[in-house]
Amino acid sequence: MALIYRTRKVVKPGDLNSRNTLFGGRLLEWIDEECGVYAACQMETQTLVTKSMSELNFLAPARQGDVIEIGAETVAVGRSTITVRCHVRIKTTQQEIVSIDEIVFVNVDDDGRPVRHGKYKRKSQ
Amino acid sequence: MALIYRTRKVVKPGDLNSRNTLFGGRLLEWIDEECGVYAACQMETQTLVTKSMSELNFLAPARQGDVIEIGAETVAVGRSTITVRCHVRIKTTQQEIVSIDEIVFVNVDDDGRPVRHGKYKRKSQ
Amino acid sequence: MALIYRTRKVVKPGDLNSRNTLFGGRLLEWIDEECGVYAACQMETQTLVTKSMSELNFLAPARQGDVIEIGAETVAVGRSTITVRCHVRIKTTQQEIVSIDEIVFVNVDDDGRPVRHGKYKRKSQ
Amino acid sequence: MALIYRTRKVVKPGDLNSRNTLFGGRLLEWIDEECGVYAACQMETQTLVTKSMSELNFLAPARQGDVIEIGAETVAVGRSTITVRCHVRIKTTQQEIVSIDEIVFVNVDDDGRPVRHGKYKRKSQ
Amino acid sequence: MALIYRTRKVVKPGDLNSRNTLFGGRLLEWIDEECGVYAACQMETQTLVTKSMSELNFLAPARQGDVIEIGAETVAVGRSTITVRCHVRIKTTQQEIVSIDEIVFVNVDDDGRPVRHGKYKRKSQ
Amino acid sequence: MALIYRTRKVVKPGDLNSRNTLFGGRLLEWIDEECGVYAACQMETQTLVTKSMSELNFLAPARQGDVIEIGAETVAVGRSTITVRCHVRIKTTQQEIVSIDEIVFVNVDDDGRPVRHGKYKRKSQ
Repeated sequence: MALIYRTRKVVKPGDLNSRNTLFGGRLLEWIDEECGVYAACQMETQTLVTKSMSELNFLAPARQGDVIEIGAETVAVGRSTITVRCHVRIKTTQQEIVSIDEIVFVNVDDDGRPVRHGKYKRKSQ
Repeated sequence: MALIYRTRKVVKPGDLNSRNTLFGGRLLEWIDEECGVYAACQMETQTLVTKSMSELNFLAPARQGDVIEIGAETVAVGRSTITVRCHVRIKTTQQEIVSIDEIVFVNVDDDGRPVRHGKYKRKSQ
Repeated sequence: MALIYRTRKVVKPGDLNSRNTLFGGRLLEWIDEECGVYAACQMETQTLVTKSMSELNFLAPARQGDVIEIGAETVAVGRSTITVRCHVRIKTTQQEIVSIDEIVFVNVDDDGRPVRHGKYKRKSQ
Repeated sequence: MALIYRTRKVVKPGDLNSRNTLFGGRLLEWIDEECGVYAACQMETQTLVTKSMSELNFLAPARQGDVIEIGAETVAVGRSTITVRCHVRIKTTQQEIVSIDEIVFVNVDDDGRPVRHGKYKRKSQ
Repeated sequence: MALIYRTRKVVKPGDLNSRNTLFGGRLLEWIDEECGVYAACQMETQTLVTKSMSELNFLAPARQGDVIEIGAETVAVGRSTITVRCHVRIKTTQQEIVSIDEIVFVNVDDDGRPVRHGKYKRKSQ
Repeated sequence: MALIYRTRKVVKPGDLNSRNTLFGGRLLEWIDEECGVYAACQMETQTLVTKSMSELNFLAPARQGDVIEIGAETVAVGRSTITVRCHVRIKTTQQEIVSIDEIVFVNVDDDGRPVRHGKYKRKSQ
């Protein structure tokens, strides 16, 4: 599956840190929201929670007026989980801002325990 | 250096995801802000930016009314960087929510290039 | 040009009105942001402002947990303007929430006066 | 009934778009909230939802520090609806920002179906 | 001068504290904004800052769906200051939520020093 | 009991008023949240509401990039109440921003009536 860039955000004054570049915490919030929606749509379920994120590196700052693109793709699908790769870049320059190789979401029941999602198919069949 | 719990947040309706637990993106925003302030205070500079975060695991959900404690401690201090460890827990139960072993902040000049901060001391002296 | 659904939002408690359905003002904010980014990307400029919106009808409410899709397409391109059509629906049910036939954005100079954008091509050529 | 200016907002940095003028989506949010409260007060009910808005034109930008006045008046009252006209201007200069001729709110029951509100009086009585 | 109720807010989920009543900090934010705008309009200046607030008592909680009215009136006008009284109530029940007898705003120059505003008139003339 | 500085905030563009200093309403929101969490932790209860605040004076403005420290200490503990003193300062300069001598929180039952909290101990025993 190829990386699909969907959500695009324009950086506004309310998104800036005190040094007038895009606040890292705001970007992490956007990433978690975007990848969570992506995973929910892939799995066709509303009961996913974020389980883990692999390491991430901020490669370049974004500034007011920059259009940010957030891309996601499926890396792996387990019994109750889906693993998503995320890539964020500035649209005009294609400059990569940050990448996260693996964000794992897990499907849970009302008590928060992992449960199989409908999209899981056993390999041996 | 010991882990110091400073900022405490109470989870309000506006902080919840659609499943009524604490929204992961909001928690990441709180972590980045808290550790960024911690790092800035340790280094006595206002020109730090977030460089990288090591992997993180969400161990338990937080719910409306929970008091969250965010702790930070210094792991290492480099020429232009400081590495911070972060630990988040629910105050009443001491239940760990998430931990991040290494958040690296780097001191930059006006053009965003790494510059030595005043707190760096050469070992051989 | 076909309608492309890009931005997807999941409705969280902080997005609700006092009747626990999606707050109309929040939805209008999302629409303006999404279509503004879409228009800026089409025109390859950062100097667009919203000029007008045609009438809109809210057809159905959205609730907590619903995934909302916002779609945009180009209706017309003028000398200094671009006209965008917007369509919002609930992803799972494909239920239409609201549609706006024409949102007009205009390219402006530093004094706010309309100026030709690079994407305009004279018909007679 | 005359147009009454009630809510006044001062434009702050967090309200700006990337071009440092008032973000259109924010203004639409303010308008929907103000007119919704106005309609609820006129109809003495808490069960109104926004049904439709007629076309709107942004006539002038607002800038940081500007005091914005939002005015509303009743245009028509139906069996289950109220139609409100909205006018927004900059207080010091009286410059009109945007006007919407008809915002229709409808009174609904728990299932979202239109129901008569107490303020409706048959003409023939 | 009589107390004028202008701004009206409807309490939404995003405005609640963890006990599902209106968050006190949010109400204080609304009060400061409303009275600041009121004072700026009275003094016809954009260079007022909040100087002090007299004691305040929260008399009753507000809940989701309540319409809150915030009223302000001028208590005194000094050389560089204006003193405002503020009263907040629930619209339907007229139940008082909180009152503040004196909020003092001071007109300042670019360096933050108090300066006479144009509305001050010497008594002895 | 000594004043303990815990929460530290860095002032970002989204926290500014139209004069580019820290918005007073935002600071009041931070104070109410911080002192409410402090009181809840001292009393080991989640059922406290803000009852009253004594007068407060804004002594100096804070600007973008300033690190703000909010300190709280217990002044008195009653049958159903706790009284907290609050002090806010700029970290680097130790410049006091605002102080509030008494913020009273009261422990309430589900109907909002004051109830004794577990931390109250009769003096005469």
